[in-house]
Amino acid sequence: MSTFVDNINPKKTALILIEFQNEFATPGGKLHDAVSTIMKENNMLANAAKTTIIAREKGVKIFHVGISFSEDFKEISKTPFGILGNVKAGQCFVKDTWNSDFVDSIKPIKDDIVVLGKSGLCGFESTNLQFLLGQHNIETVAIAGFLTNCCVESTMRAAYEKGFNVITLTDCTAATSVPEQVSMVQFGLSQL
Amino acid sequence: MSTFVDNINPKKTALILIEFQNEFATPGGKLHDAVSTIMKENNMLANAAKTTIIAREKGVKIFHVGISFSEDFKEISKTPFGILGNVKAGQCFVKDTWNSDFVDSIKPIKDDIVVLGKSGLCGFESTNLQFLLGQHNIETVAIAGFLTNCCVESTMRAAYEKGFNVITLTDCTAATSVPEQVSMVQFGLSQL
Amino acid sequence: MSTFVDNINPKKTALILIEFQNEFATPGGKLHDAVSTIMKENNMLANAAKTTIIAREKGVKIFHVGISFSEDFKEISKTPFGILGNVKAGQCFVKDTWNSDFVDSIKPIKDDIVVLGKSGLCGFESTNLQFLLGQHNIETVAIAGFLTNCCVESTMRAAYEKGFNVITLTDCTAATSVPEQVSMVQFGLSQL
Amino acid sequence: MSTFVDNINPKKTALILIEFQNEFATPGGKLHDAVSTIMKENNMLANAAKTTIIAREKGVKIFHVGISFSEDFKEISKTPFGILGNVKAGQCFVKDTWNSDFVDSIKPIKDDIVVLGKSGLCGFESTNLQFLLGQHNIETVAIAGFLTNCCVESTMRAAYEKGFNVITLTDCTAATSVPEQVSMVQFGLSQL
Repeated sequence: MSTFVDNINPKKTALILIEFQNEFATPGGKLHDAVSTIMKENNMLANAAKTTIIAREKGVKIFHVGISFSEDFKEISKTPFGILGNVKAGQCFVKDTWNSDFVDSIKPIKDDIVVLGKSGLCGFESTNLQFLLGQHNIETVAIAGFLTNCCVESTMRAAYEKGFNVITLTDCTAATSVPEQVSMVQFGLSQL
Repeated sequence: MSTFVDNINPKKTALILIEFQNEFATPGGKLHDAVSTIMKENNMLANAAKTTIIAREKGVKIFHVGISFSEDFKEISKTPFGILGNVKAGQCFVKDTWNSDFVDSIKPIKDDIVVLGKSGLCGFESTNLQFLLGQHNIETVAIAGFLTNCCVESTMRAAYEKGFNVITLTDCTAATSVPEQVSMVQFGLSQL
Repeated sequence: MSTFVDNINPKKTALILIEFQNEFATPGGKLHDAVSTIMKENNMLANAAKTTIIAREKGVKIFHVGISFSEDFKEISKTPFGILGNVKAGQCFVKDTWNSDFVDSIKPIKDDIVVLGKSGLCGFESTNLQFLLGQHNIETVAIAGFLTNCCVESTMRAAYEKGFNVITLTDCTAATSVPEQVSMVQFGLSQL
Repeated sequence: MSTFVDNINPKKTALILIEFQNEFATPGGKLHDAVSTIMKENNMLANAAKTTIIAREKGVKIFHVGISFSEDFKEISKTPFGILGNVKAGQCFVKDTWNSDFVDSIKPIKDDIVVLGKSGLCGFESTNLQFLLGQHNIETVAIAGFLTNCCVESTMRAAYEKGFNVITLTDCTAATSVPEQVSMVQFGLSQL
């Protein structure tokens, strides 16, 4: 949560906000109902919004990582399986629509950076995130967003392997059920 | 399990065996007790050994992915945290010792390939696995090994993002508890 | 050049168009004068446009890889060196300007895919290109664009390591001088 | 050259030694004749040996990056092209032979780290180098070795994109000809 900023060097730290888009975060988003129970329980959206403001004020660089696809989903295989198949079938996160817009309470402003390219689970694998963190001499990454055990977890795992000091803000993340919400942060990959 | 070979093109398929090393797989290994309960329950070692033989006979390329460190663990940070900290504290997987040797029942033979470099969780991130799969025109990867929800899962997640057809052989993997064993294979990243 | 399509399986091939943006390709672009001599000599823009049309008709998937930055260049280090320093100093490729728009003769249409994230030299390192190629079962990549010995070459080198069959369309690329134009395609990394 | 250590923080710096193996560096190596002219001209082997000693004494971490293959070259495609095809045809860098051993004057000692997995050109793409640099909080990489415009250059390009401060020790590298030796270090990717 927001107190993480008390224990880090803000100039070497990134707050990585994963998929705070209406599709997940706002009533009316196609995936909102799936996460609304956990969102209410841990108040993650308000926590994340507050954390973002405090971190930004302290000098932590904010990175917004959204996902989006063309309306014909041509970026995805014609015979997809798994979560990408579901995203395509459900026509989620179509670019330049309200659904893929960032939620009102956590919009990119001023010096925030919008990470580009995310098409899969991991915040690094299909994006310019590593390039951007390198350009900003980041050593510590704090991670928040959706889904705890999917994109947040893949990003946490990758960040750990890349040698970052990793902090997962578990009261700023949501999953689709309690077991999934608590199943993450295993093996001490993250320090929170 | 071994029947996966009935549904794939063996010439385009890799069987990826993760950390079938004595440290995990054999009584006397430092981490064996942690996984022995699940190993007995699902008979994963015998399943994996049998699957490897059948897959090899069918023409599936076998990739052995071990992990090892110098005895002073100089590859790992001086202030590690999480699982790498535990590996270092426990002095696990020291190279050129019995502990890091592959288990007797699943040794690399003939045309099998030994993947090099693995230092973290993911079978791709710190290794030449992607290079090797590219050289062999692999489209489908079947994954087995230790731990289900740690290295196997990280490898599965990365393989999915890279566009491979992913099969996780859940009766050829082990974790340290039943909840961890069943927590994986979420989101349909794998087709088994 | 365009005849490459005669020797490949179009359904397994990608044409990767690197930085066919006005900044390079069109008079008035800030970097156009630097490449205009080579562009005239080898007629690369017309060649690339023609190749794109023919490849598209044959069923080759077209991937447009542009580069762009915020107008304050916050994506780049505050103390950059080398080519990124030059891009920032020259305020090149500002997003949502004519300069970063794709050149009129090679615009993305229909089923073409626009690759996202490119911030450095390599077409893979900071983008979703590998994800996209994986989703489309691509085995062969044909590469064209700017600069021959910079971004085109970095992309060629990376594609080679990843196991793709690589074709560099040398009459569809340009550099800033003849020696630089011919210095690439060493070591046979590319088959043309 | 060795004076680079005067301008860096040794605790944040890595000296990356690429393929200082007998195959390249020692008379009798299969590729030695190809590089011996440049090696004599710039005295690169003695320079690199001296630089390694001085850097090590200053506290710079030394990373040895060799390349090797099984004697049947099963790691490489059955239908290779380009430099990997040549390596296979020439049966170069067979593991556990004198040819792939590190040259006598630059052997790994004490706290040096041997990077694993290198199978292609780039020192990062198929290895655990990034993992290791992350574990050691490295910000600056100095690069030396063979070939200037092949593996050294690919490593330099990748390090630049990943945000490292890059120093290429051009009097500690060799290529197969003068034009190739001087063709590298373009675009200011490296600060030396």
